[in-house]
Amino acid sequence: MLNFNYSIPTKIFFGRNKIEVLAEQVKNYGSNVLLVYGGGSIKRNGIYEKITDIFNKNNIRFWELPGVEPNPRISSVRKGIEICRDNKIELILAVGGGSTIDCAKVIAAGYYYDGDAWDIVVDPRKIDNVLPIASILTLAATGSEMDAGAVITSLETSEKLGTGHKDMAPKFSILDPTYTFSVPKNQTAAGTADIMSHIFEVYFNNTKEAYLQNRMAEALLKTCIHYGAKAMEEPGNYEARANLMWTSSLAINGLLSYGKDAEWSVHPMEHELSAFYDITHGVGLAILTPHWMEYVLNDNTVDKFVEYGVNVWGIDSIGDKYEIAHNAIKKTKEYFVSLGLPSSLREVGIEEEKLEEMAKQATVRGKLGNFKPLEAQDVLNIYRAAL
Amino acid sequence: MLNFNYSIPTKIFFGRNKIEVLAEQVKNYGSNVLLVYGGGSIKRNGIYEKITDIFNKNNIRFWELPGVEPNPRISSVRKGIEICRDNKIELILAVGGGSTIDCAKVIAAGYYYDGDAWDIVVDPRKIDNVLPIASILTLAATGSEMDAGAVITSLETSEKLGTGHKDMAPKFSILDPTYTFSVPKNQTAAGTADIMSHIFEVYFNNTKEAYLQNRMAEALLKTCIHYGAKAMEEPGNYEARANLMWTSSLAINGLLSYGKDAEWSVHPMEHELSAFYDITHGVGLAILTPHWMEYVLNDNTVDKFVEYGVNVWGIDSIGDKYEIAHNAIKKTKEYFVSLGLPSSLREVGIEEEKLEEMAKQATVRGKLGNFKPLEAQDVLNIYRAAL
Repeated sequence: MLNFNYSIPTKIFFGRNKIEVLAEQVKNYGSNVLLVYGGGSIKRNGIYEKITDIFNKNNIRFWELPGVEPNPRISSVRKGIEICRDNKIELILAVGGGSTIDCAKVIAAGYYYDGDAWDIVVDPRKIDNVLPIASILTLAATGSEMDAGAVITSLETSEKLGTGHKDMAPKFSILDPTYTFSVPKNQTAAGTADIMSHIFEVYFNNTKEAYLQNRMAEALLKTCIHYGAKAMEEPGNYEARANLMWTSSLAINGLLSYGKDAEWSVHPMEHELSAFYDITHGVGLAILTPHWMEYVLNDNTVDKFVEYGVNVWGIDSIGDKYEIAHNAIKKTKEYFVSLGLPSSLREVGIEEEKLEEMAKQATVRGKLGNFKPLEAQDVLNIYRAAL
Repeated sequence: MLNFNYSIPTKIFFGRNKIEVLAEQVKNYGSNVLLVYGGGSIKRNGIYEKITDIFNKNNIRFWELPGVEPNPRISSVRKGIEICRDNKIELILAVGGGSTIDCAKVIAAGYYYDGDAWDIVVDPRKIDNVLPIASILTLAATGSEMDAGAVITSLETSEKLGTGHKDMAPKFSILDPTYTFSVPKNQTAAGTADIMSHIFEVYFNNTKEAYLQNRMAEALLKTCIHYGAKAMEEPGNYEARANLMWTSSLAINGLLSYGKDAEWSVHPMEHELSAFYDITHGVGLAILTPHWMEYVLNDNTVDKFVEYGVNVWGIDSIGDKYEIAHNAIKKTKEYFVSLGLPSSLREVGIEEEKLEEMAKQATVRGKLGNFKPLEAQDVLNIYRAAL
C-alpha cells in the first residue's frame, strides 16, 4: 500500500426527498446562486420547478446557465463566469450529470482567474481560488458529485482535457435515486460503463499490494454488474438506481485509489473519441475497454486479470491463467453488449481517418497509465483493434 | 438502501513517516497542545520522543495526560479537562489506540460542559461544543481515529457507555503502519477481532437491500481474515499492518453503515464484560460473537448467514442453508481461536456470578440490535452459552 493523504470533504445527502435540505445548505454559502443545467430534462421531470420553488420561498436569488453540452464546452464555462461576475454569485449549483457538474466546477475556478478559462483547463496549477459549488445529481456516471476533477472540451482545438483542484470538490451533493428513474436506457448503460471504467482504471495498475482497495473495487464492480442490467429492465427500481448512484460516487472519490498508483489509460484514450466525434463518453469507454484489456494482457499483468475473473466474474480459479484472463475480458465485453452498448468504433461512425491524430493527441501529456504504459503507437493499435 | 447523510471530515495522513505533517497540521488549530497517551509504550518505541522533538522545534507548547487505561475511565477524563482549562489548550492530541483517543474525545467535549463529565457520557445530547482533537494511531482496532464516538468506563458505577458528537471526530489522524509493528500478539489478535466485530454489527442487520454496503463489508472482512493471521506471524509485515490499520478506520467511519440500520448487539453485551471484569474489549468480542451468531440464527436470518459463509469464507453455495450457516459460524470461531484468542468466558475468569446483573445492565437502554432484538434474558442466554 502506498502512502496517501485522505480528504473527502463533500457532504452527501442521499435518498428520497433529500432535496428538503437544499435551502438550508445553500444558505451556508450565501443567497445569490447560479443554477447550471443541461438540455432541459430537469424541466420535463419537475426537478427544475422543485428547485426554483424552494429558492423563491427562501429568498434565494438565482441566475441560470442552461444548455450545458454532454461534453461540456469551454464556451459554456466562459458564459457562466460572466454571469457570476456580473451578479455577485456566491454558490454555483449544478443540476444534472457529470457534464453539468464539471462545467460548474471550472466556472467556479475561472471566476477568480484573470486570463481565459481554457488556461486553467490546460494547466490546473493556475487555479488559486474557487467559488463554492454544490450539485443535485440526475445521472449516475462520472462521480463528479464527490470529486475534485472536471473534464472540458474545446471545439476550436479538438481537445478534451481534465483539470482539478481540491476546492473544486462540491461542498455538498444531493443524491436522490428517484431523480434517475427517467434516465433513458442508453444513458443508463453508458453511465454504468463509465462507473465500471473508473474502477478498472484504479483496479488494473502496478501497485502489487493494497489488498483492501482491490477487494473494495471488486465489491463496487459486482454492484455495477448486478444493478446495471436491472436498471435497464426496470428504470424505476429504487434499489438498482440507489446502488448505481452511490457506487458512482465511491468509485472515484478517492476511496479506491488512495494507497495505489492511479495513472489512467482508457479515459484519456476515450477523451479523444469524444473530442473529435462528440460521442457519449461511456459508450466510447465500453468500446475501448475490452480491447485495452486484451492489449495490456501479458506475463506481468495476467495475474491481475485472473484475480478479476475469479473474484468479480466467479470464474473457476483452477485452469490456465491466460484462459481465465481471456474469459474475464470476454465476459466484460459481453456484459457491455448485454446493456445494448456498441462494441466497435464503426458502430458510432468512427473510421480509420483520424485515428493516428487522436492517438498522438491522447499521448501529448506523456505515456498513458502504468499498468502497461502506452505510447501513441500502442493507442493507435488499440483504436484499430476496436474499429 | 435507507436514506443517509454522509459526512466524514477527518483528514488521514497514511503511511511511513507521515508524522512529518504533524507540526503544520497542529498549527492549524493553535500551539497549546494536550498530549494524551496510555501506559508508556510510546516512550519505549520512540514515538513520544519524535513527537516532543517536533513540538520543541516548532514552538508548540504541550502538557501531558499519561496513563490512560485500556478501558478508559471517567477519572482520566476529569483530569484531562482540568489540564485543558488551566492551560488554554487549543488541540488535544491522542497518541495510542482507541482507549486513548476515546478519552481525548470526551475531554474535548467535557471542556465546554459545566457539570460533571460523566453526564455527557450518559447523555450525549448535553454536548454543545468540542475542542479540536487529533490522533496518532498506534493500534489498529477501534476505528476511533476516524469516527465521532467514544466509550468510557465508570468504575464507581460499573458502567461502560458509548457517547458521541459530530465534532468529536478527529480533525486529522496520522496512521503510520510501522507504529504498530511492536504491538504484542495478543493485542494484534484482539484488535483484529474488534475490527471484524464492527463490520459484523452493520453487516448482520435487517436492512434487506444495500447490496453495495454488504459487498464492501465482505471486502473488509476478507482483509481482516487475510492479514490478521499474517500480522501475528510477522509483526513487521508492512502490508499486513497497513491493511489492518486502514480497515480499522473504514470499518466504522460510516462507510459501511450509511444506508443501513445499525443497531449494535455484541458491542453493548461486551461492554458489560469489560466494565465488570476489565477484560480486553476485543477478547470479549471474540468470545461472544460466535455464540451471538448461533443465538440469532433463525428462518428470518439464515439467508444472511449463507451470504456471509459463501462470500466471505468461500463455502459452496449448494447445500442446506443451515448447514452453510453453522459452518460459517464455526469458521468464524476457529479463526478467532487460530489467532490465540480465548473462546469461553471462564478462560478470562468470568463465571456465572454476575451474568444476570450484566445482562440487565446491557439492556438498560432498551433491546439490543434489530437483526434479532435481544432482551435481558436473551443476553443472559448468550452469556451462559459462552461460559
